Amino acid sequence: MRQDKNSLVVALVGYGYWGPNLLRNYMEIPEATVKWVCDCDASKQAKAKSSYPSVAVTEDYSDILRDPEVDAVLVATPISTHHDLAVAAINAGKHVFVEKPMTATTVEAEALVMAAEKHGVTLMVGHTFEYSAPVVAIRDLIRSGELGDIYYISSSRINLGLHQKDVSVICDLAPHDFSILFDWLGEEPEDVTAMGRGCIRSEIPDVAFVTLRFPSGTIAEMQLSWLSPVKLRRTLVVGSKKMLVYDDTESVEKVKVFDHGVNVFEPESFGEFQLSYRTGDIVSPHISGREPLRVEAEHFLECVREGKTPKTDGLSGLRVVRAIERAETSMKATV
Amino acid sequence: MRQDKNSLVVALVGYGYWGPNLLRNYMEIPEATVKWVCDCDASKQAKAKSSYPSVAVTEDYSDILRDPEVDAVLVATPISTHHDLAVAAINAGKHVFVEKPMTATTVEAEALVMAAEKHGVTLMVGHTFEYSAPVVAIRDLIRSGELGDIYYISSSRINLGLHQKDVSVICDLAPHDFSILFDWLGEEPEDVTAMGRGCIRSEIPDVAFVTLRFPSGTIAEMQLSWLSPVKLRRTLVVGSKKMLVYDDTESVEKVKVFDHGVNVFEPESFGEFQLSYRTGDIVSPHISGREPLRVEAEHFLECVREGKTPKTDGLSGLRVVRAIERAETSMKATV
Amino acid sequence: MRQDKNSLVVALVGYGYWGPNLLRNYMEIPEATVKWVCDCDASKQAKAKSSYPSVAVTEDYSDILRDPEVDAVLVATPISTHHDLAVAAINAGKHVFVEKPMTATTVEAEALVMAAEKHGVTLMVGHTFEYSAPVVAIRDLIRSGELGDIYYISSSRINLGLHQKDVSVICDLAPHDFSILFDWLGEEPEDVTAMGRGCIRSEIPDVAFVTLRFPSGTIAEMQLSWLSPVKLRRTLVVGSKKMLVYDDTESVEKVKVFDHGVNVFEPESFGEFQLSYRTGDIVSPHISGREPLRVEAEHFLECVREGKTPKTDGLSGLRVVRAIERAETSMKATV
Amino acid sequence: MRQDKNSLVVALVGYGYWGPNLLRNYMEIPEATVKWVCDCDASKQAKAKSSYPSVAVTEDYSDILRDPEVDAVLVATPISTHHDLAVAAINAGKHVFVEKPMTATTVEAEALVMAAEKHGVTLMVGHTFEYSAPVVAIRDLIRSGELGDIYYISSSRINLGLHQKDVSVICDLAPHDFSILFDWLGEEPEDVTAMGRGCIRSEIPDVAFVTLRFPSGTIAEMQLSWLSPVKLRRTLVVGSKKMLVYDDTESVEKVKVFDHGVNVFEPESFGEFQLSYRTGDIVSPHISGREPLRVEAEHFLECVREGKTPKTDGLSGLRVVRAIERAETSMKATV
Repeated sequence: MRQDKNSLVVALVGYGYWGPNLLRNYMEIPEATVKWVCDCDASKQAKAKSSYPSVAVTEDYSDILRDPEVDAVLVATPISTHHDLAVAAINAGKHVFVEKPMTATTVEAEALVMAAEKHGVTLMVGHTFEYSAPVVAIRDLIRSGELGDIYYISSSRINLGLHQKDVSVICDLAPHDFSILFDWLGEEPEDVTAMGRGCIRSEIPDVAFVTLRFPSGTIAEMQLSWLSPVKLRRTLVVGSKKMLVYDDTESVEKVKVFDHGVNVFEPESFGEFQLSYRTGDIVSPHISGREPLRVEAEHFLECVREGKTPKTDGLSGLRVVRAIERAETSMKATV
Repeated sequence: MRQDKNSLVVALVGYGYWGPNLLRNYMEIPEATVKWVCDCDASKQAKAKSSYPSVAVTEDYSDILRDPEVDAVLVATPISTHHDLAVAAINAGKHVFVEKPMTATTVEAEALVMAAEKHGVTLMVGHTFEYSAPVVAIRDLIRSGELGDIYYISSSRINLGLHQKDVSVICDLAPHDFSILFDWLGEEPEDVTAMGRGCIRSEIPDVAFVTLRFPSGTIAEMQLSWLSPVKLRRTLVVGSKKMLVYDDTESVEKVKVFDHGVNVFEPESFGEFQLSYRTGDIVSPHISGREPLRVEAEHFLECVREGKTPKTDGLSGLRVVRAIERAETSMKATV
Repeated sequence: MRQDKNSLVVALVGYGYWGPNLLRNYMEIPEATVKWVCDCDASKQAKAKSSYPSVAVTEDYSDILRDPEVDAVLVATPISTHHDLAVAAINAGKHVFVEKPMTATTVEAEALVMAAEKHGVTLMVGHTFEYSAPVVAIRDLIRSGELGDIYYISSSRINLGLHQKDVSVICDLAPHDFSILFDWLGEEPEDVTAMGRGCIRSEIPDVAFVTLRFPSGTIAEMQLSWLSPVKLRRTLVVGSKKMLVYDDTESVEKVKVFDHGVNVFEPESFGEFQLSYRTGDIVSPHISGREPLRVEAEHFLECVREGKTPKTDGLSGLRVVRAIERAETSMKATV
Repeated sequence: MRQDKNSLVVALVGYGYWGPNLLRNYMEIPEATVKWVCDCDASKQAKAKSSYPSVAVTEDYSDILRDPEVDAVLVATPISTHHDLAVAAINAGKHVFVEKPMTATTVEAEALVMAAEKHGVTLMVGHTFEYSAPVVAIRDLIRSGELGDIYYISSSRINLGLHQKDVSVICDLAPHDFSILFDWLGEEPEDVTAMGRGCIRSEIPDVAFVTLRFPSGTIAEMQLSWLSPVKLRRTLVVGSKKMLVYDDTESVEKVKVFDHGVNVFEPESFGEFQLSYRTGDIVSPHISGREPLRVEAEHFLECVREGKTPKTDGLSGLRVVRAIERAETSMKATV
């Protein structure tokens, strides 16, 4: 079955909305062999088999756990099942990749991190944006100090659809922004609040506004909605030296760095603060990169092969789950 | 001095940033005669005199209060002085127009409303956006039911500058959005929360995120900032039937109405909710109108002349001041 | 081999840049069976075979011509070979679909039309845009008279790349605009002029400006370039009643109809013409449609099956080739 | 009358559409004193007098010519009168500023240049764009070689209105682009062609497409229209090293420089040319500057005072008039 000695054997569980993207990417990577696709829905199995005849399909997850050839399991099932499926794989000695958010609760996330540590296997979570070229480029700008201190970040992630049946818009969309923010800033928020509303179905919030306060002083805000006339994927990062706009809907100028700022003149004595506004060039750096999903998959395989800690490891997954939980709790309190 | 019998005599107090705009507009209206400009700064007086030699200037506000010819006083001074100047004018039997926000505190606002009522004079506040053509057009769309129930409103009012020396970005920018929202929705929020930060000077918040919850269920959110790489003046209104975007920085298509929505199919029994997304035409109605400040000025004069209640009366001013105070209180609590 | 009685057997010749798109579409249509792919490049054959194992590959075009099962041939080879390959297929009694431009010269185009007529086979050319939803929607607006008389049309089709090795930017890009214009207006130009330049290689013009004058009075102009900092795919249509902008790079508002115009007041006597400008609503109609290439393929199959004349028949192909030839001739005269 | 010894006395003839802009600017410049405004329309005289009571008004141009105090005359009358009014002023020993286009014909333009030379007075033409900051910035980029060889320039100057009563859209709008192009490139075109149409009134072309070919090889094209659904003021400059877009309707990013290009690999022997496309950063340089009209006015005064040759001198005016005449001639030939 193995293509070559270095090729890792992986199994995919969950072939719904996202699973096919994982399968396609892992099929194209020479360092991996996808042996199994597991899904409880027979039509999904048939779809996988039709696209990739070389893959074995099953509805019985234990087929995978029992298979000694399987090195790693990719979990792309509904969120509520992430913990149990991942723990079972870990207990069977498999490395595990879990889609975001890593688990449904913080308690589950902590258990998962501990299980992986106990068994010495790799645990990685699919915070895909952390592998996209614009997000990496902005991370470099922030971490290098080119933007100065980060005053605040404001993010819009809104469009029309797709309503999830069982989780809120926070659980669906905020993992993107949480993982991006924590990656950029290198810290977890000390305060998370949220306000939202279930417009279409009152029990499932489909619009939410989340605010974060970080120990460094940085504040952040995100607008999340499945109900919007326009699609926005835009983040403003305002630093003490420079500012930038990241617009993921733009095909060319995804990132624009503004050499703008405020100069403050300290009062000598009894005087007033004096401010002046600085307006400089606007630069849209050329950013190119491979498909983030492909980069993510190769990173997972490399971590498994070489025993490295993934960039988006279990602790990263835990941080995002904790932020979601805090936002959801805050949102319920305000209803 | 009077141009004609119907011409009202007005006096302007405060000739700083905004006063010249009021003066220019009232000078152009045949139904008004501007007799006085009062400012404690001699250079401002000179500037007014130079532009409009027919106007008398003074640094003594009592010159205006004592002048029996003066029908109405326009107050365009710093916010902290609004209450005292307006009450003095009311006690002198003058009609009063006050710039926004009407006063610095809710207590002052209530006192002002009561004073005007007691003396039977007109009290109007300068919520100028309520007189602008796009805001009026959207109000008509909402009030006519064309958008359906209003699910939520999200507003961005951000740009680089101008930092105020003594008031927060909420006090400076939110009056626009509060007055617009209350006008559109015809209700006051039952809950106002805010989070923000003083980036340039820690004691003066220059970025803030405000959320509102209304009795009807509508929620709203506003982003306010003097520190942004881009200038945004954009409001999303999402209703159950239609949605719209109001972008005041656009020269042509300021309002776009999207015939988009979500159709919900009730489950028959034990079934799941089914949703479908409806995407229809996008219409940018032709909206034309005169300068809002001119419309506002003429409305004030008409109300004074005919004893009508202004659209933006003292109670309107009070509602906005109350919302600012609640937002500021919430923001301080979260710091 | 046949999937069902109604399924037509087609063969594709040319598997370079465009061939794979044709193959994918015809493979997905139940009414067609692709039996052959012919390409003189063995690596291209291998690529086709790898993607679609059921297809036979060959480098010998006569394999296709000799195969009595083949109903129709799809020609997607370099332009200079179109005529010979198509005529050979027609002489073998096959129906023929030829990519645009239909042939390299007007003489060839006329010969092809006559050959198809003589043998009673279907000849269709791949003017794909005529099958795209926005182009069809605009055609309906023009033909219904909603825009009034068409004063002029201006079109920009520019971006960075891809330089063709053997044909000019006119031959590469103008077929799109020529076919769209002739379809919309229902007439051929009486005058075609062009000016251009070979910037990168002097013998191959990579930027050109083409002007057209139609018998009805409509004039048109197109900018074509492989050397541009920005990608534009935008056409303005200005009519006596309404005007529109068609921007194919927009994901949502591809067509915007402006209810704008000029009202002319005839002078009574000795007076001057008086004009006034009318500015009304701007409407972006919701336009949805299937992939134009798929619509085109199904239309070809339907025409073959039912003996109908294709919308983009040989005469349509001839008109476009004639316009290209006139533009090229004019361009050479001005160099 | 003179404000100070260095102050020049100027007289304005023509107080229609553009005259008030000239008057306002010269009134604000300490180095100039506007003594006269001449217009044959009494209501225009009254308007000038009302705005600037210190200015003398007249309908008799000879009042100005006879006044020994007048140093310079500003001509802002209809084009057909430019030559006669300017020559009369020159003959009276006055320096002359003439609005664009300088004259109605090349013959007139040549006569004007010769008259000014003969009398040793300054002759300057109001090619205002040559004094605007973005145009100057682009000129510097081109002249410094940063863009490399200029392959081509394409310009759109279209919007709805204002139809001129007696001159074509070329005469009205092309002077802007001609003067900009000649300034940037430092050369005159060897070939000018045009095609257009009078849509609203057949005798006055209101849409035109003009192409230019320069001795250096650069080609250019301009779209001019008073009949367009959208307003465009955009110029593309494509060089062998870099490319740029100049969009004068943008409030912030008026100029964007694209570090894009094509790399050509020469074939070794019998091989093919190989091209690769280079896509780099996009930079929008911060450009600030004073009102072009003010810069232009100060430049005229400085040239008069110091005997310098204006940047937009009579020869510059002649070049633009010649290009207009050639374009008009070409356009008539193609109708």
